[in-house]
Amino acid sequence: MQDLINIGVIGYGYWGPNLVRNFSEIPGAQVRTVSDFKPELLAKAQTRYPTLKVTTDYRDILKDPKIDAVAIATPVSTHFDLALAALQAGKHVLVEKPMTTSSEQAMRLIEKAQRRNLVLMVDHTFVYTGAVRKMHDLITTKVVGDIYYYDSVRVNLGLFQHDVNVLWDLAVHDLSIMDYLLPYKPYAVSATGISHVPREPENIAYLTLFFENNLMAHLHVNWLAPVKVRRTLIGGSQRMIVYDDLEPSEKVKIYDKGITLNSNSAESVYQMLIGYRAGDMWAPHLDMTEAIRTEGLHFIDCIQQGDRPISDGEAGLRVVKILEAATQSIKRQGRLIELNTTEVAV
Amino acid sequence: MQDLINIGVIGYGYWGPNLVRNFSEIPGAQVRTVSDFKPELLAKAQTRYPTLKVTTDYRDILKDPKIDAVAIATPVSTHFDLALAALQAGKHVLVEKPMTTSSEQAMRLIEKAQRRNLVLMVDHTFVYTGAVRKMHDLITTKVVGDIYYYDSVRVNLGLFQHDVNVLWDLAVHDLSIMDYLLPYKPYAVSATGISHVPREPENIAYLTLFFENNLMAHLHVNWLAPVKVRRTLIGGSQRMIVYDDLEPSEKVKIYDKGITLNSNSAESVYQMLIGYRAGDMWAPHLDMTEAIRTEGLHFIDCIQQGDRPISDGEAGLRVVKILEAATQSIKRQGRLIELNTTEVAV
Amino acid sequence: MQDLINIGVIGYGYWGPNLVRNFSEIPGAQVRTVSDFKPELLAKAQTRYPTLKVTTDYRDILKDPKIDAVAIATPVSTHFDLALAALQAGKHVLVEKPMTTSSEQAMRLIEKAQRRNLVLMVDHTFVYTGAVRKMHDLITTKVVGDIYYYDSVRVNLGLFQHDVNVLWDLAVHDLSIMDYLLPYKPYAVSATGISHVPREPENIAYLTLFFENNLMAHLHVNWLAPVKVRRTLIGGSQRMIVYDDLEPSEKVKIYDKGITLNSNSAESVYQMLIGYRAGDMWAPHLDMTEAIRTEGLHFIDCIQQGDRPISDGEAGLRVVKILEAATQSIKRQGRLIELNTTEVAV
Amino acid sequence: MQDLINIGVIGYGYWGPNLVRNFSEIPGAQVRTVSDFKPELLAKAQTRYPTLKVTTDYRDILKDPKIDAVAIATPVSTHFDLALAALQAGKHVLVEKPMTTSSEQAMRLIEKAQRRNLVLMVDHTFVYTGAVRKMHDLITTKVVGDIYYYDSVRVNLGLFQHDVNVLWDLAVHDLSIMDYLLPYKPYAVSATGISHVPREPENIAYLTLFFENNLMAHLHVNWLAPVKVRRTLIGGSQRMIVYDDLEPSEKVKIYDKGITLNSNSAESVYQMLIGYRAGDMWAPHLDMTEAIRTEGLHFIDCIQQGDRPISDGEAGLRVVKILEAATQSIKRQGRLIELNTTEVAV
Repeated sequence: MQDLINIGVIGYGYWGPNLVRNFSEIPGAQVRTVSDFKPELLAKAQTRYPTLKVTTDYRDILKDPKIDAVAIATPVSTHFDLALAALQAGKHVLVEKPMTTSSEQAMRLIEKAQRRNLVLMVDHTFVYTGAVRKMHDLITTKVVGDIYYYDSVRVNLGLFQHDVNVLWDLAVHDLSIMDYLLPYKPYAVSATGISHVPREPENIAYLTLFFENNLMAHLHVNWLAPVKVRRTLIGGSQRMIVYDDLEPSEKVKIYDKGITLNSNSAESVYQMLIGYRAGDMWAPHLDMTEAIRTEGLHFIDCIQQGDRPISDGEAGLRVVKILEAATQSIKRQGRLIELNTTEVAV
Repeated sequence: MQDLINIGVIGYGYWGPNLVRNFSEIPGAQVRTVSDFKPELLAKAQTRYPTLKVTTDYRDILKDPKIDAVAIATPVSTHFDLALAALQAGKHVLVEKPMTTSSEQAMRLIEKAQRRNLVLMVDHTFVYTGAVRKMHDLITTKVVGDIYYYDSVRVNLGLFQHDVNVLWDLAVHDLSIMDYLLPYKPYAVSATGISHVPREPENIAYLTLFFENNLMAHLHVNWLAPVKVRRTLIGGSQRMIVYDDLEPSEKVKIYDKGITLNSNSAESVYQMLIGYRAGDMWAPHLDMTEAIRTEGLHFIDCIQQGDRPISDGEAGLRVVKILEAATQSIKRQGRLIELNTTEVAV
Repeated sequence: MQDLINIGVIGYGYWGPNLVRNFSEIPGAQVRTVSDFKPELLAKAQTRYPTLKVTTDYRDILKDPKIDAVAIATPVSTHFDLALAALQAGKHVLVEKPMTTSSEQAMRLIEKAQRRNLVLMVDHTFVYTGAVRKMHDLITTKVVGDIYYYDSVRVNLGLFQHDVNVLWDLAVHDLSIMDYLLPYKPYAVSATGISHVPREPENIAYLTLFFENNLMAHLHVNWLAPVKVRRTLIGGSQRMIVYDDLEPSEKVKIYDKGITLNSNSAESVYQMLIGYRAGDMWAPHLDMTEAIRTEGLHFIDCIQQGDRPISDGEAGLRVVKILEAATQSIKRQGRLIELNTTEVAV
Repeated sequence: MQDLINIGVIGYGYWGPNLVRNFSEIPGAQVRTVSDFKPELLAKAQTRYPTLKVTTDYRDILKDPKIDAVAIATPVSTHFDLALAALQAGKHVLVEKPMTTSSEQAMRLIEKAQRRNLVLMVDHTFVYTGAVRKMHDLITTKVVGDIYYYDSVRVNLGLFQHDVNVLWDLAVHDLSIMDYLLPYKPYAVSATGISHVPREPENIAYLTLFFENNLMAHLHVNWLAPVKVRRTLIGGSQRMIVYDDLEPSEKVKIYDKGITLNSNSAESVYQMLIGYRAGDMWAPHLDMTEAIRTEGLHFIDCIQQGDRPISDGEAGLRVVKILEAATQSIKRQGRLIELNTTEVAV
């Protein structure tokens, strides 16, 4: 039998309590210490988990030789320093998304983890939902066929953030899902956006991602919408998918719809004959396990087996690169920005 | 009492029958002649309206001195020649949207109509719906406040066209609605798109419109979507609107939601305090008169009174200019294209 | 080749024009004459179909030896007299629903048609829709399993009728669908209802139908509802169906959901073990042919082949019997009324 | 300042934890002791609330002189004995719904509470939601006008209960809401239902409630439905309401729709002229405070002020009487059962 993996959680604000609850409940792991600089949050943690150690100094976690892994749930601007220190202290790391505020930082973390042979995982939570995993199956088993487009809308009346624009807050979800689902990686982006509050980052943004292989993706994110929408359309040569995360159970619908191209006719020298196809729709039953549980089990398993996580540092880096490029493109009103595709050297 | 306005209709394919039916039913007008180059369509018209004259040669309409006005419902590539000939023949003109295939052509029609003192109207049908007119009221009476954004999605599994991309087919609706609703005109566009059929125009397109005055607009159009969506979000400083044209009756919903900015605090030197506001929603009762009827009455009225139509040649031109610029931008992967704002000289 | 079936249509109000249009377009039939006592309606028919004969006296239709079949689209109170006269004149009959105002009348029409060897069909239109035919397939092929219940809601703000209660106007649709879909016939009813207009028939009604075989049905109809609802739930031992006629395309959804009963356990002497099952949902593609066309073809075919229609006089009679019994039950506040199951003697 | 009200909670299964959490958070109250006969549930309570006393014997709560009030969250069959014992011990009582298994029991509890001058409150939770309180305002301020009907559907694939039929599990919610909202009380019921599991209580039921004053109510409850529905229609002479509890925020929609009756015409001797009215719809912003919190505050307030709760013992009794009568009516296939309107003598 494996030893228990001891976890330290840094940050007990919005997401931290979910991490603590979850790692407390999965076999093979236990939360040893929680740190936060607000004592009242620690008191809350203590009440709920009387055996837990708490501290206002995260370095107590890094210094503790009994702690194997650290989960970081602090503001994005602190991710890099905390994750780097944790890796340096020899801890496996699970860090909130977005991984870092720059691709430069992300690359340094990847390098450090590789050198120390530690697991570096980014908390791309949606990748571990039943809905996204089902879509992954549908795509890898060719049910969808060649993918033509990926289009997502993620809008609501949400909390305006002061340090990052809406892409870093909302599009990060779609980018992490796309990174997992799509068989190709984008080579360039064009983005537009606007801020409605003086001196604040953009609260609306539109992002087009260019791919080779006849594929295009587009994201629409907005903190100032009257209604909440979480809807993705995926078009393929064989099927099309509507993924609506607000549906209580039928989140993924697969449509046997599309076009058929016929080039065997005489006309086809200059024009394809396009046929239209409309068949059944079905909504597969989804695994409703909480994503954070599936993700936590995967993190523990990667540590124990020495495996690479699905949402590893490279995945986190790819997402950050796109966010960086898109933010640049917005400033230049849609100017095409190529994604530097050079992978981190190791 | 005014004399009846005699109408000739050129083109009896998809939209022509609606024009004939409508002008037959409104007071003050009558349809005298229909032309189409397909005799079987003319036979259909004849059966339905036994007193109607039919001809395969549209010039019979232009030559007929009893005909006051011509409605043109033919493919867009023929609009310019037919409208120009009709104006030269001294007929008032109602032409299908998009008005022409180039802004150059549109300007020449405007000039011709002005010189001959004839009504030139573009069939921007949505402008005459109860839903759009209600939104116009809400905007002009400042219920919405300053407009922050206009975002529209118009997608479905639709007929792929071979001569124009999806913007000219679908976005033309949104552009004509925006032209009527928004108090400002865009100064530049950035657009992206993709074609999934070799050698055919783009079947998916995304278009951002840049305005002065803290306003941005975005359109998403797609011929290859698994579901039909017709949804527009309009964000304002006082209210936000959701306009869903697929709703059978509650097409326009007004949300008393948004943000409030407070700059009176000490902190405000560098940061606005943002408050969030959520109040009632209401869906006003809409006039359900068929848009084409309201539009037909307006056309007749403009002829009789010598008035300028809401959807006049200038409106048609502004829409065509945006379509031209967007098509250019798509080819350059989102490159910003400024809209030449020089109005036609008269 | 068969001779054309010549049709006379009596009544050109709401439904008559649909019958005329439809019989004009299907092969094997043609409409020869239309009668209505309102000359302005006949003028309308004449304009649309110049070769049609029109008359204000329906007896002209009955006397015309060239006419083979009569379609009756008049108020329900006149159905019996007109259908009886038509049968006596040797014409096949298609009569609007409800067939008659009493089961006594319905039985006399059945008897007359049988004696004269004529086709007697009731216009149970919904039975001929793609949605209902698909559900019929799902039920007869045992996809649904044993049927547990049938529950329908049909409400909206509708035209209050002065001569019949809301059951005769709205529930007649559900009863005709149920008569076609369900493998059993009800033996008794209990109904409740209320009128909100003095001296007028009930504008809201609830109807429970009792069956042998562990099956129950319930209908809710209402002329005074703020929203339009057309939704039927069908529960079965293997699958459950939601049929929503207001959905534009996915009208029929099949849920692989339900309970499983296990009586093999020791506990089962006094209690079944109930398990819950939740699987995929699917929405089959439906034939979107207009129901009235499918129905018209079936009527012509029955005349030509001497077949019995799906919605024959017996089906019409069963529906009328239930409406009669339910109306009685309403007056007695839900009192159980047995359906006299004696079939008409021939 | 008032002394803290000390609460004992009996039952820590499904609902008990909500009561403990809630009474722990509201000012003026604290939970002193929790009892449950399952030690593992008590261990859970202890972990979460380390200062809490726990016991497997509820009599420890009744004997504790420091405890002022008892909340009972146990199976319905135990409500009467536990509530009676608590009242005899001089404790104020909050008991889960349905209040008891018979009206006889409910009357005895009311009598006991009155004699001892103790607060007896039934946990009719929905009455304390923002949605139901808003509808109460709309009805009492005559926005809705005279109420014509109340129609509710509450169905889903739910846990089959073995001791009571679906009415006692689901309709109890609607009956408690109606008891609060409607200005009149029903005088009789007619109900139908069916069980699909041998020797088990009905899993589907339909219940009509008869009122004086031109009002009727109907409930549809079902444990075996493929979809979850929680929708109530309330028709009034001035407005109509749709209350959909599954809507995330716009749960209550008010329609300015209906009929108008005109009896001033000559025709009106025998027939009303009915007009149809369709105006705006609006969805008021709702107080989203958790209902159990509002309810807990109300319970504490009633104890401190000696007030009568909104959902007092009489309300609980009226609901139980209807459930009793409806269960009888089901056995007799819809037979009208009058509600004994004799109030409890005190």
